[in-house]
Amino acid sequence: MSLSFEVQNIDGGGGRRGRLELPHGVVETPVFMPVGTAASVKAVPQSVLEVNGAGGKGAQIILANTYHLYLRPGHELVRRMGGVHKFMSWDRPMLTDSGGFQVFSLSKLRKITPEGVEFRSHLDGSKHFFSPEHSMDVQIALGADVMMVFDECVETPASWERTRDSMGLTHAWAQRSKDHFELHKERVPWFEALGGKTQSLFGIVQGGMYADLRKESAERLVEMDFPGYAIGGLAVGEPRDVTREMIARTLEFLPKDKPRYVMGVGYPDEIEEYAKMGVDMMDCVLPTRAGRHGLLFTSGGRLNIKKLQYAEDQGPIDAECGCMVCGRYTRAYLRHLYASGEALSAVLNSIHNLAFYLDTMERVRGELAG
Amino acid sequence: MSLSFEVQNIDGGGGRRGRLELPHGVVETPVFMPVGTAASVKAVPQSVLEVNGAGGKGAQIILANTYHLYLRPGHELVRRMGGVHKFMSWDRPMLTDSGGFQVFSLSKLRKITPEGVEFRSHLDGSKHFFSPEHSMDVQIALGADVMMVFDECVETPASWERTRDSMGLTHAWAQRSKDHFELHKERVPWFEALGGKTQSLFGIVQGGMYADLRKESAERLVEMDFPGYAIGGLAVGEPRDVTREMIARTLEFLPKDKPRYVMGVGYPDEIEEYAKMGVDMMDCVLPTRAGRHGLLFTSGGRLNIKKLQYAEDQGPIDAECGCMVCGRYTRAYLRHLYASGEALSAVLNSIHNLAFYLDTMERVRGELAG
Repeated sequence: MSLSFEVQNIDGGGGRRGRLELPHGVVETPVFMPVGTAASVKAVPQSVLEVNGAGGKGAQIILANTYHLYLRPGHELVRRMGGVHKFMSWDRPMLTDSGGFQVFSLSKLRKITPEGVEFRSHLDGSKHFFSPEHSMDVQIALGADVMMVFDECVETPASWERTRDSMGLTHAWAQRSKDHFELHKERVPWFEALGGKTQSLFGIVQGGMYADLRKESAERLVEMDFPGYAIGGLAVGEPRDVTREMIARTLEFLPKDKPRYVMGVGYPDEIEEYAKMGVDMMDCVLPTRAGRHGLLFTSGGRLNIKKLQYAEDQGPIDAECGCMVCGRYTRAYLRHLYASGEALSAVLNSIHNLAFYLDTMERVRGELAG
Repeated sequence: MSLSFEVQNIDGGGGRRGRLELPHGVVETPVFMPVGTAASVKAVPQSVLEVNGAGGKGAQIILANTYHLYLRPGHELVRRMGGVHKFMSWDRPMLTDSGGFQVFSLSKLRKITPEGVEFRSHLDGSKHFFSPEHSMDVQIALGADVMMVFDECVETPASWERTRDSMGLTHAWAQRSKDHFELHKERVPWFEALGGKTQSLFGIVQGGMYADLRKESAERLVEMDFPGYAIGGLAVGEPRDVTREMIARTLEFLPKDKPRYVMGVGYPDEIEEYAKMGVDMMDCVLPTRAGRHGLLFTSGGRLNIKKLQYAEDQGPIDAECGCMVCGRYTRAYLRHLYASGEALSAVLNSIHNLAFYLDTMERVRGELAG
């Protein structure tokens, strides 16, 4: 079995406590997935990621970005190294996105045709072409447990007509992604090592900020029958109540027995809220990116460590946090590291923020356990 | 007892196996001291530093820079935080330099008088004045186990006359440092907490590249009676056989029952060589600085991880190294992290290089144990 998902409890609000089994291990849901863009969760050693958080369980599943690894070091190199798990020495589950979002947000000189997208690398300006088929080939070479269909991401805001047309393209690409994946899924680097298991390909619901398009997109993707469904194109600048509304109006039309993944969210209170609405998986760069900028998440809210008020503060970041950073270092020291531009600042801030996210989801799982 | 030093064995070449007891713990010598300039060994968490190296013993003593901590966050802030040990959460021995070397190498618009040195901060151009007395006050506020006299560092190369004059100033400053330290040593932040123990002030032998001046400097400092002696002003660009010669010609005139410290050296083969000549303590930024630049030290020599030849190399940095980096990551992955500018690159490279230095000294201590 390449993926099995069991919903163990559903609470009154629709929140689900579940268990997702993947080729590289079991994931208790709802789950937050730290982002390891270039096969590294920025500034955090894998050995820390494995034990991070109050319970010492660490991250259950992490994400890597297909676009980045395709450009550097190249997916064929990663395949020759045994796949992304072996390459980065991470033996727990992983997920790769399709590269679509990065092609549309990072690269230059895009030319979109029904066939695919021509773009230039943000690294060196070199010209590349991504199609659904190519995204599948790249993701199969990387070998994450879960991979994503190649989708078009519209600019925001976009009109209903523009969003509908883009959604149509995304649906056609989803079918092509699935067809190509099914033909070639046995090429995953660990196919034989893991007894013939393969990756699982998730669909992505689009439809912008239009509930009717979200419904149509969900229904169309469910017809294609994926083992899991993502909700894409959110948290791109729209008001938070719109994000919540779009998630709610999409979840209605997704099967209850399959994992549901909202891509690229969010702040700690958001991931908690969406989990309690019935979202099973989320990812976001926020804990590590904010950490590098001195923004720390705590049980009392956000804390900007660069502020003068912390210069002589002998307390931990968060007295209620059980992470290795809060157990050892003062706000005064962390402010000094940040102010001095010390590399350790990003390391420790990222570890704390990730622990806070992991602990938040651990608590939510407890609340949803019934 | 604020410092006790016991030479346990001397081998035929003059190398010594010793035991140095300081207020914050015991240091087995010869020892390499990682440099934590701004109260952080760059990119390495304290929890890793405590267990780094094949034996898991970690660093026994680390160094912090007085000049940097004086400018940021300020020595009085560090004093209010309980001293540099508490500030950075490091409860093993520490050493601070006098700030002299940094004043002469980093700052601008220096004006030297017999009284002291006026200089401008390399951070913001603000004007400051350091005298022997002021350096002592700053180092007492920081509260490392070992502190250093304030010395003038001459430019290199310098004439015999220029070096002799500078040395004269350094000797006068050494006496003033000692006098001020003796008067004020009970102000160290942990004086009461550690039962009335105080810091120990080491003298610094100067004399440039002139053996007669080195002899004179050593004899003059020995008359002043310090609990330990450093050899300063070396590894500043001179040929290596000159460094070795100056160390040898200085060691002759230093007491055999006190610790001897060569400042700011060196490559792994150098620290081994000097330890076997009878040097007990050394420090250098090289393992961490080289690590950040992708230069790794191994039992087979130096390795530049950025080279294309390592792009698909599945071996560890050093197959004979027992560190946590060599136990987990491939050269291919470490090259990718470096090439991608990932923050984890500096973390892992620094951990390996420090482990290599610590292991080198552990091996040398074994060879000198008799």
